[in-house]
Amino acid sequence: MSAPRGRLIALEGIDGCGKSTQARILAGRLGAVSTFEPGATPLGAALRALALDPGEVPVSARAEALLMAADRAQHVVQVIAPALDAGRWVVTDRYAASTLAYQGYGRGLDRDELDSLVDWAAAGLRPDLSVLLDLPVAAAAARRHGGTADRMESEADEFHLRVADGFRELAADSAVPWLVVDATGSVDSVASTIWGAVEALAGPDGPPGGPR
Amino acid sequence: MSAPRGRLIALEGIDGCGKSTQARILAGRLGAVSTFEPGATPLGAALRALALDPGEVPVSARAEALLMAADRAQHVVQVIAPALDAGRWVVTDRYAASTLAYQGYGRGLDRDELDSLVDWAAAGLRPDLSVLLDLPVAAAAARRHGGTADRMESEADEFHLRVADGFRELAADSAVPWLVVDATGSVDSVASTIWGAVEALAGPDGPPGGPR
Repeated sequence: MSAPRGRLIALEGIDGCGKSTQARILAGRLGAVSTFEPGATPLGAALRALALDPGEVPVSARAEALLMAADRAQHVVQVIAPALDAGRWVVTDRYAASTLAYQGYGRGLDRDELDSLVDWAAAGLRPDLSVLLDLPVAAAAARRHGGTADRMESEADEFHLRVADGFRELAADSAVPWLVVDATGSVDSVASTIWGAVEALAGPDGPPGGPR
Repeated sequence: MSAPRGRLIALEGIDGCGKSTQARILAGRLGAVSTFEPGATPLGAALRALALDPGEVPVSARAEALLMAADRAQHVVQVIAPALDAGRWVVTDRYAASTLAYQGYGRGLDRDELDSLVDWAAAGLRPDLSVLLDLPVAAAAARRHGGTADRMESEADEFHLRVADGFRELAADSAVPWLVVDATGSVDSVASTIWGAVEALAGPDGPPGGPR
């Protein structure tokens, strides 16, 4: 018995934009596998700590991109591809665009070279839909809780502005289908906009429904 | 004051071929920086453990290649390039060819794609000379001590045969200058063959001499 292949939906944006909340809502409604990057596999959790924990070891820009790519390679093989093959839909909190935005626009690595790296790491697996939750950097910073900032969060404002602009550029001209949502709206209105795009993606039979 | 740029010499081959011994002898004679992959930086040491320790977490072929590439990226930025810029010669026990041999020929990843990855990770830094210590797989296995085998060492014979053949193919048609040495000879005779190639590399002024 072979189920029709599932769909991969990636939620993208800067920290504090509401991705995690929307990923949870969407995955619940779809009965989808809910996952995230970096850190969803045992290897990924170790790499996430190396790449993001403040006070960890020195990591160059290229090494950082390669750690994120290694996290994604393992995530695809161990979590995402098996779920899609089994006919499940998958909602991931961050995917390829985050590497392009943070390590490309943020760190200044060449975008085309990074694009090849990201695509190779994922063995060519691209999202069926990427959703950008677009929020001004200042508003996102205000939404983030106190707590300890990780190595990305503790970067200067200029870095986050480049990353936010990067996401907008990626959404404007990528070959991947994008939905850009104004994330200043309420949680419910953002969720409703995303659901509309997911229904369009699903086609005539509609998206799968999760347990209510 | 700017010193003439140093040279990078990589010793390559399967485990047990005598690389480490020859790297130590050569670096001592040159007064060179002696280093190795994977694991020569704090980041690299953590990645080495993830990639090689038996019983560690699952690591896919692409993820393994990306961990090795991340190790190299950090190694180049933190150790190799600063030494070369300061005019030091650098001898490394393994470099790019090991990734091509183990993850390409050994694990079956596409060699051209891997070549691009490896070159990007190293920011284009290639060795001035790569030395292959060529030893039959059976002889190398006999030379290795008992101890605990890492994840590469515990692979089947077939894997090591592919890796050994891979090194020979790389040495035969790479754009990088190669010296292939029959590693069945004595330590002294192998060291002497390597030194001859290093003198040729150094040109009329000869190689630098280390402390005696």
